[in-house]
Amino acid sequence: MRIDVLTLFPDMFAPLTQSMIGKALANDKLAFEATDFRQYSHDKHHHVDDTPYGGGAGMLLKPEPLFEAMDDLNAKHPGKKRVILLDPAGRRFNQTAASELASEDHLVFICGHYEGYDERIRTLVTDEFSLGDFVVTGGELPAMVMIDAIVRLLPGVLGNEESAPTDSFSSGLLEYPEYTRPASYRGMDVPAVLQNGDHQKIAKWRLKEALRRTYDRRPDLLDGLELDKEGQRLLREVKTEAATRRAEAQLHADEKPAGADEMNESH
Amino acid sequence: MRIDVLTLFPDMFAPLTQSMIGKALANDKLAFEATDFRQYSHDKHHHVDDTPYGGGAGMLLKPEPLFEAMDDLNAKHPGKKRVILLDPAGRRFNQTAASELASEDHLVFICGHYEGYDERIRTLVTDEFSLGDFVVTGGELPAMVMIDAIVRLLPGVLGNEESAPTDSFSSGLLEYPEYTRPASYRGMDVPAVLQNGDHQKIAKWRLKEALRRTYDRRPDLLDGLELDKEGQRLLREVKTEAATRRAEAQLHADEKPAGADEMNESH
Repeated sequence: MRIDVLTLFPDMFAPLTQSMIGKALANDKLAFEATDFRQYSHDKHHHVDDTPYGGGAGMLLKPEPLFEAMDDLNAKHPGKKRVILLDPAGRRFNQTAASELASEDHLVFICGHYEGYDERIRTLVTDEFSLGDFVVTGGELPAMVMIDAIVRLLPGVLGNEESAPTDSFSSGLLEYPEYTRPASYRGMDVPAVLQNGDHQKIAKWRLKEALRRTYDRRPDLLDGLELDKEGQRLLREVKTEAATRRAEAQLHADEKPAGADEMNESH
Repeated sequence: MRIDVLTLFPDMFAPLTQSMIGKALANDKLAFEATDFRQYSHDKHHHVDDTPYGGGAGMLLKPEPLFEAMDDLNAKHPGKKRVILLDPAGRRFNQTAASELASEDHLVFICGHYEGYDERIRTLVTDEFSLGDFVVTGGELPAMVMIDAIVRLLPGVLGNEESAPTDSFSSGLLEYPEYTRPASYRGMDVPAVLQNGDHQKIAKWRLKEALRRTYDRRPDLLDGLELDKEGQRLLREVKTEAATRRAEAQLHADEKPAGADEMNESH
């Protein structure tokens, strides 16, 4: 895979060469280049932004530098590209999108910065993505997050081939709790079942705890999920146990002496 | 505000010193430190991870180095902290969370890496956040995204004080299209209304286009929104125009010669 980034801050992408992405680069699984599109500015002060038509605060990225940077990229690397713009109005990035983009040959990320960009820049783009409903200073950090999520799915990039498919979202469930040594630390013990070596019991415990965490925190993920008989049975247990906990909590609340709430509030 | 990060890759945070965050640091609006918690490892090979109890692929972060790093941080900087873990099971990070965290005095980000971490590490944490339903190699890049979204909300950090409140999500709408010079570029023209200098017309056009983009792409954002009379009228226009476009598209589809679809499908 080849990934190009058009940015005003190419040095921001240095961290990608650490850790897993660095290995992908070293193993020729990935070619990566961050291009400063300020070099495509024509005026002597190398301006890439200008004031908005119609007035208003802030500066906008001008169209010419990005159009010419794309011209150059298309000349150097002809062929099909997905050209991605990070924008709050874009499609929400998720693991499905990461898998989809991981199957492409060439991705180009256009990173906006400053207040915004000339609307015509969107015509260069095949995909607009958003990481979520929040505002950041520029597209660089979100692009790095997307690149990390995509590149780790490329065949041969993760050292341990088992790792990717057991992650959260690949199974459709959140991950079960995991423990390593020591067996007891600051009064907190590793659950006995994980120390007994009974692999059938361990598998059942893990599935149940993954179901419990998903039911507690992200019940929406359970909606589309197809569970086998055992999974369905464990999910029923999880729901019963949650209902029992809620009922007990209610019972304790009811048992509080009359007037206790008011007393607390008066402090 | 003070922000600490506990990470195995402190160098990855170098890009934060560029751009806006760098200015916040220079102006003493922010104190930032990334600490390598590998220094709290006790064995001579400086291991921070170990195999999971109960078997399975991958390595987990051990509890001791992170617990001792937090001990040290609490000794050096006593007082209330929000301790944030990036985890797929966490609360979805959004602009509301960014504002909430921007009002704190001290944030600590714990960045996991490798396959996962010992469950007991969660007891150190006050908040678990997720950027979305995707998997990345470590918490470092998502933490940087969150830090950028938070720090830009600190008073005096953005150069132009007008910028933050007019962003997407602050108004509750996606941003309207913006244009800068040239008025015509590669056959694409800046809308005439923006070039006429009639500020009332421009304001109305911008509100309508923000409503249109939000209605087209994120209609969910319109649900909780309180619009004034003018806004309500413009939204009705947007909806009528969208319905007309859909009806026209349907008409064109119906006008296709009989058998055209089947012919296309046979290729």
